[in-house]
Amino acid sequence: MPSLLVLNGPNLNLLGTRQPDVYGRVTLEDIKNMCRAHADLRGVALAFEQSNHEGVLIETIHAARGTHDAIILNAGAYTHTSIAIMDAIHSVELPVIELHLSNVHAREEFRHQSYMSKACLGIICGFGARGYTLAIDAALSHLGHDG
Amino acid sequence: MPSLLVLNGPNLNLLGTRQPDVYGRVTLEDIKNMCRAHADLRGVALAFEQSNHEGVLIETIHAARGTHDAIILNAGAYTHTSIAIMDAIHSVELPVIELHLSNVHAREEFRHQSYMSKACLGIICGFGARGYTLAIDAALSHLGHDG
Amino acid sequence: MPSLLVLNGPNLNLLGTRQPDVYGRVTLEDIKNMCRAHADLRGVALAFEQSNHEGVLIETIHAARGTHDAIILNAGAYTHTSIAIMDAIHSVELPVIELHLSNVHAREEFRHQSYMSKACLGIICGFGARGYTLAIDAALSHLGHDG
Amino acid sequence: MPSLLVLNGPNLNLLGTRQPDVYGRVTLEDIKNMCRAHADLRGVALAFEQSNHEGVLIETIHAARGTHDAIILNAGAYTHTSIAIMDAIHSVELPVIELHLSNVHAREEFRHQSYMSKACLGIICGFGARGYTLAIDAALSHLGHDG
Amino acid sequence: MPSLLVLNGPNLNLLGTRQPDVYGRVTLEDIKNMCRAHADLRGVALAFEQSNHEGVLIETIHAARGTHDAIILNAGAYTHTSIAIMDAIHSVELPVIELHLSNVHAREEFRHQSYMSKACLGIICGFGARGYTLAIDAALSHLGHDG
Amino acid sequence: MPSLLVLNGPNLNLLGTRQPDVYGRVTLEDIKNMCRAHADLRGVALAFEQSNHEGVLIETIHAARGTHDAIILNAGAYTHTSIAIMDAIHSVELPVIELHLSNVHAREEFRHQSYMSKACLGIICGFGARGYTLAIDAALSHLGHDG
Amino acid sequence: MPSLLVLNGPNLNLLGTRQPDVYGRVTLEDIKNMCRAHADLRGVALAFEQSNHEGVLIETIHAARGTHDAIILNAGAYTHTSIAIMDAIHSVELPVIELHLSNVHAREEFRHQSYMSKACLGIICGFGARGYTLAIDAALSHLGHDG
Amino acid sequence: MPSLLVLNGPNLNLLGTRQPDVYGRVTLEDIKNMCRAHADLRGVALAFEQSNHEGVLIETIHAARGTHDAIILNAGAYTHTSIAIMDAIHSVELPVIELHLSNVHAREEFRHQSYMSKACLGIICGFGARGYTLAIDAALSHLGHDG
Amino acid sequence: MPSLLVLNGPNLNLLGTRQPDVYGRVTLEDIKNMCRAHADLRGVALAFEQSNHEGVLIETIHAARGTHDAIILNAGAYTHTSIAIMDAIHSVELPVIELHLSNVHAREEFRHQSYMSKACLGIICGFGARGYTLAIDAALSHLGHDG
Amino acid sequence: MPSLLVLNGPNLNLLGTRQPDVYGRVTLEDIKNMCRAHADLRGVALAFEQSNHEGVLIETIHAARGTHDAIILNAGAYTHTSIAIMDAIHSVELPVIELHLSNVHAREEFRHQSYMSKACLGIICGFGARGYTLAIDAALSHLGHDG
Amino acid sequence: MPSLLVLNGPNLNLLGTRQPDVYGRVTLEDIKNMCRAHADLRGVALAFEQSNHEGVLIETIHAARGTHDAIILNAGAYTHTSIAIMDAIHSVELPVIELHLSNVHAREEFRHQSYMSKACLGIICGFGARGYTLAIDAALSHLGHDG
Amino acid sequence: MPSLLVLNGPNLNLLGTRQPDVYGRVTLEDIKNMCRAHADLRGVALAFEQSNHEGVLIETIHAARGTHDAIILNAGAYTHTSIAIMDAIHSVELPVIELHLSNVHAREEFRHQSYMSKACLGIICGFGARGYTLAIDAALSHLGHDG
Repeated sequence: MPSLLVLNGPNLNLLGTRQPDVYGRVTLEDIKNMCRAHADLRGVALAFEQSNHEGVLIETIHAARGTHDAIILNAGAYTHTSIAIMDAIHSVELPVIELHLSNVHAREEFRHQSYMSKACLGIICGFGARGYTLAIDAALSHLGHDG
Repeated sequence: MPSLLVLNGPNLNLLGTRQPDVYGRVTLEDIKNMCRAHADLRGVALAFEQSNHEGVLIETIHAARGTHDAIILNAGAYTHTSIAIMDAIHSVELPVIELHLSNVHAREEFRHQSYMSKACLGIICGFGARGYTLAIDAALSHLGHDG
Repeated sequence: MPSLLVLNGPNLNLLGTRQPDVYGRVTLEDIKNMCRAHADLRGVALAFEQSNHEGVLIETIHAARGTHDAIILNAGAYTHTSIAIMDAIHSVELPVIELHLSNVHAREEFRHQSYMSKACLGIICGFGARGYTLAIDAALSHLGHDG
Repeated sequence: MPSLLVLNGPNLNLLGTRQPDVYGRVTLEDIKNMCRAHADLRGVALAFEQSNHEGVLIETIHAARGTHDAIILNAGAYTHTSIAIMDAIHSVELPVIELHLSNVHAREEFRHQSYMSKACLGIICGFGARGYTLAIDAALSHLGHDG
Repeated sequence: MPSLLVLNGPNLNLLGTRQPDVYGRVTLEDIKNMCRAHADLRGVALAFEQSNHEGVLIETIHAARGTHDAIILNAGAYTHTSIAIMDAIHSVELPVIELHLSNVHAREEFRHQSYMSKACLGIICGFGARGYTLAIDAALSHLGHDG
Repeated sequence: MPSLLVLNGPNLNLLGTRQPDVYGRVTLEDIKNMCRAHADLRGVALAFEQSNHEGVLIETIHAARGTHDAIILNAGAYTHTSIAIMDAIHSVELPVIELHLSNVHAREEFRHQSYMSKACLGIICGFGARGYTLAIDAALSHLGHDG
Repeated sequence: MPSLLVLNGPNLNLLGTRQPDVYGRVTLEDIKNMCRAHADLRGVALAFEQSNHEGVLIETIHAARGTHDAIILNAGAYTHTSIAIMDAIHSVELPVIELHLSNVHAREEFRHQSYMSKACLGIICGFGARGYTLAIDAALSHLGHDG
Repeated sequence: MPSLLVLNGPNLNLLGTRQPDVYGRVTLEDIKNMCRAHADLRGVALAFEQSNHEGVLIETIHAARGTHDAIILNAGAYTHTSIAIMDAIHSVELPVIELHLSNVHAREEFRHQSYMSKACLGIICGFGARGYTLAIDAALSHLGHDG
Repeated sequence: MPSLLVLNGPNLNLLGTRQPDVYGRVTLEDIKNMCRAHADLRGVALAFEQSNHEGVLIETIHAARGTHDAIILNAGAYTHTSIAIMDAIHSVELPVIELHLSNVHAREEFRHQSYMSKACLGIICGFGARGYTLAIDAALSHLGHDG
Repeated sequence: MPSLLVLNGPNLNLLGTRQPDVYGRVTLEDIKNMCRAHADLRGVALAFEQSNHEGVLIETIHAARGTHDAIILNAGAYTHTSIAIMDAIHSVELPVIELHLSNVHAREEFRHQSYMSKACLGIICGFGARGYTLAIDAALSHLGHDG
Repeated sequence: MPSLLVLNGPNLNLLGTRQPDVYGRVTLEDIKNMCRAHADLRGVALAFEQSNHEGVLIETIHAARGTHDAIILNAGAYTHTSIAIMDAIHSVELPVIELHLSNVHAREEFRHQSYMSKACLGIICGFGARGYTLAIDAALSHLGHDG
Repeated sequence: MPSLLVLNGPNLNLLGTRQPDVYGRVTLEDIKNMCRAHADLRGVALAFEQSNHEGVLIETIHAARGTHDAIILNAGAYTHTSIAIMDAIHSVELPVIELHLSNVHAREEFRHQSYMSKACLGIICGFGARGYTLAIDAALSHLGHDG
């Protein structure tokens, strides 16, 4: 049974209350439940974490090696500034899927650059909370778990 | 029953034979069949087209208004150069999902810019042929057809 | 009796229905009629064409040599990307007037560059459909047909 | 009866003698007479001014509020450097038409940027002195004075 | 009684000892006392915190919602690099005043960009420790507490 | 008794009527009265001037030497384009405080550069009319007139 | 017997009449005859085509696979804007020689970038019509047909 | 007898008192006397003017036509920002020599660009007050008055 | 006896397992032992630390003041993004040597910029683990401990 | 009988041994012999030189005036950095053909700029040693020696 | 008696024959004689040298220390590319005057940058051969030899 | 016994006298002696050369192949401008260590780019003359001569 890590970055703990016109009204707790339900349906294990600390995100990625088979990463604003997280992705040699709730490429110029993209398998963005289950499906498909 | 248009741009007719290390060995015919099968499973109508002509792509998008409920667009290299296709998307006011087989953001610099992204709902890239069925799911979810 | 060609580029066939807050509610058919009426008033011949295809626009410009005395060109989004149309203008050595319905210089940055401008006699933009009759007047004035 | 202000910027007082290959041989006095004649024909009032001083141009724009219904502005070289004149245009909330004798977009790179364009209704350039009467027509059309 | 949070970023704990030619000889403890005294005088509550950790700053901003009425933020070097803190400011929808001891715009080029400025109400910089009490006054004035 | 000069640049004479969503409804006359009252309260002399002319602003700065002890400068749009005013500030060797009503760093890109900042003591922006009294306090504090 | 495709892009159909100071007075028909004669002399087959349509050029390149052994491509203005034609070259895995009549690197800045160059074997430019026979020789040499 | 105009721009009226480490201790009055003495020696007429107003500088250049045979222009900070003065130089078709007291190319980056240089005969900079007499010699030599 | 601090940044804890083609197979533990042995040989004290947290690195640098005589800093990916660590180096006024295992200037463009370099004494990069003992020698030489 | 100079720049003396994957295994001696043989066949004189010194290359170009009728120049790395060699080409007013063994436009970004191209008749690159005989043919064709 | 070195860079040996529309018809020999005559008149020693070799120019500058009191340097194209010559100027700590025959700032963009300017006392350009005697006068004036 | 070449570029012959605040007071002769002594100590052969000529540096690198086992290269200002020296390094396939006396990355912007770095094994900079012996140690370590 494959195991997935869904990892969320800065400010995502405020989801649902923060700028609902951009990010929607679904909370991170809702998303966790939605992911859990989808993982159960697909018969896979799923861990779900969030941190506002770049260092913690790096270490959570490090710890995924040997524990999880793929990572779904919504790195929030660190997407655009953290070479260190990109290096962490490179270092663990796991498939990582970059995820964004909003279509970052239709927003401010500085959100168009992603260090994550250089190290990730693929990108899903703009589909709101629904993007998480799409990403789970994409990860499982990549792992050959298409059942 | 919602109807989807899957629209493919330049050089995608050669898929499966062209640079398999970048784009894989699946042909566009294979993808069409895969999309058809998935659409049947989801109970939606699906049209599947390809053109190497910018003008034809524009007109196919125009024609989708009133015929289809959403477009899944793999605009190929026109992604990076065609403001005219972007304007066509804006003009029809349909939800459009931008799709790429490869992770364009991990490739050459000139593939990092997308005019499509400015007009699309969301983006899926880097998952190869599997991205098409993810995009169908994303489109249906957006249309409230989560069945 | 001078003869003018009014040539329209991509997406202008949707005029009047597409993004009316930007482009207004007048259709291309309305504009054609307005141009025809104005040409009659001024006593000149007028052809009016539209294409979404860069290649067709190039060939229509080529064909204007020997047929028309001036061109009024609303190249739409190709304005910003087509060196080939610019070269076509250079090659036919006819006076060409660049026309835009909206004030492109007050819109997105990528609409501020015009390859057309490098080859055109003059520019009229931001006056909506009324710009077409202004352009007819400008062309006739340039041709010495001020009567 | 609508009233128009035609406002000319730096160096335009030398028109007709200065670089005739770029700007032609018509003097500013000639243009004033041409504008006056055209305004009479169209049955509108017209004021015609010129200044080499950025501050005077700003204050003339300020003073137009309540006096004139639209401004035709040939800001000369201040077009490319004066954010202050752009702010003046914004502040008076009158329709302003940007005018240039030559096709500035076919000249040196630094003449391609216009602060005026960001605040103006529309732009007419490249038609020499004839551009002034086109601009009067455009202004009147915008004011619904199409008589 | 309004409550203000004064939040200080990286390296500000060394204030008074670090590069006194740039930052002066006043310590952060001195500034805290100065702020406390000023807050007492103005009759408002005031919390004063410092952290070198981007994640801690983000979470302190999160926690301010519901506790404080405005934030005075000297984000130090994170001013120029942290989109995540900018997003945190957006997410809490509190008025935030950006503060710098030195005139950052007169220093190195890379200190001229501020992500904070895009999300803050206003900016005070270059007045040394005195800037803190100015910022308290500015915050209170914004809150209508002009006493 | 210290003497302050409050100097205002282009278009500020229209304050209160011009784009109230950006600049508020307070007039320059209101601000002058507010500054006068505050100066009286603080026991300092205050001159208050406005000009739309770059040259007049330069000469007013020159004349401040020997007359005033500090300048509060809202240079309006000249902030972003006038090296000459910056040089004037350098030349008089008086403390100058840069002031903006709106948060210029949260507006258009071309308003992010300030030549004034390179020569000024400090910057206050985004606090509307209230910024003027904050600037008076900052100037007096700098002059050691904290009374 | 090797077979070569000589493929010409937009506006080259006007050759000989268009801007003779830049492109010379030789027509495309003359060049075709010159190429045919040279191919006969060298004992190779040669096809010669021209299109103003980006899509047609792409499809002609696609069709060359299995039919021709090398392509000589004068892509005209599409050289500088078409990533799609570059991708077509990559996809057919044939040797392609980039050809220009004029020395594009001594002309306008925007003609210095070539997407073709990234995918082509080599480049010949600046030798007018004579470049075509040089390119035939270069292609045959590359194919080992030096006889 | 040739006549020269020495024209000085913004802030130069403060010369000798302003930033003596950059500009020296010689006043503009001293320079005028030095120029007058040198002109007498060389047997030429010389006018010497200064203004802080861009518009006045433009009009002084206009007025030089027919009055003077050459202009020596120290445009101060307008050197780097005024396209309008550059256009004035072009318009009068007199030889103009660009002069700077300091070596502007060894100072801040924004002082490296000169609009004046595009229209002037030659440039003399970095020699302090002595540059004025060198410029007089250069002007006279250009006028063939080498006596 | 001088005391040195060897400080390692993000992802270096994975050394030896992470991308061995770029970083080699030596672990951070190996490097610590190698540094310890070399320090013993040279008769100096040595502390060796690693953190993935920008804030922890900042505070470790702060704490070095008064404890260590020099710092050898391999800041990993924070080298390219952390102005805050650069400020920390400036603030403690200790000699700091910048160290990289790989030749960062021969890698991706974004690794060519180093904020560390602006504050460090010198740089050693590209020599793998051996760079650490070279850096110890360089530090001791700088401290006059050449024995 | 025309005379040609084939001039080779820095590092070309190592050809055949240096980076054979980029430059091939043919030595410069081989190329000289190939050129000599081709020149004999075409009935022209040919000189063949190489230098690693920019100054020597300049002087060899100078000396070609009056001795040779055209130059074939492979300037190696100086292609991208030497304005002085470009000026030498301009100064001798001989036709010069720019030659590169590899397709420099498909290599590193800094090899895409060529100062040579601005002064040369035409360019041949990417055909390895065979490019030399193509260049001889191109030069002779330009000289009207097509025999 | 002061001694001056006049040092000329690449291609200046061809002066008078090379591009006379840009550089005039005076030869370097003529200029040497003109300089010698002027030096005699001014009662100073003068050496006059030219080299096309960057290394020779560097060494000639080195050798000037202790031999000459000032250098007049026309570095030709090396002006724009040679940091090494700039460093040589810095290293000898002699006053150096940068000289150009033509107005380089009115020519191609790449001639606007000068490494020389960063190290030189002042600049004279655009006065043709006459610039040399102006530079001699400037050098002597700087040396206090105004005789 | 390995043999090392220490190669020094332009202006380094003046070391010790030139700008001692940047480069120190040690002469190149001192450094040669220091290197010789260190080489003796380490039991290796060492050649030590300097040239101001780019071409000579290139040829000295060429000649090192087969003679020396590694090169320590202080290319001086050519570091930032010479692609030709970079190509020479690539061509000889010897390990080359880039060396700078000062920390070039903390100096002017144009000294931050190094063509050498793209071809060198590693970089040592900022340690003054002591860097040479560090580089010898680094080279020997790379050659496995750690004895």
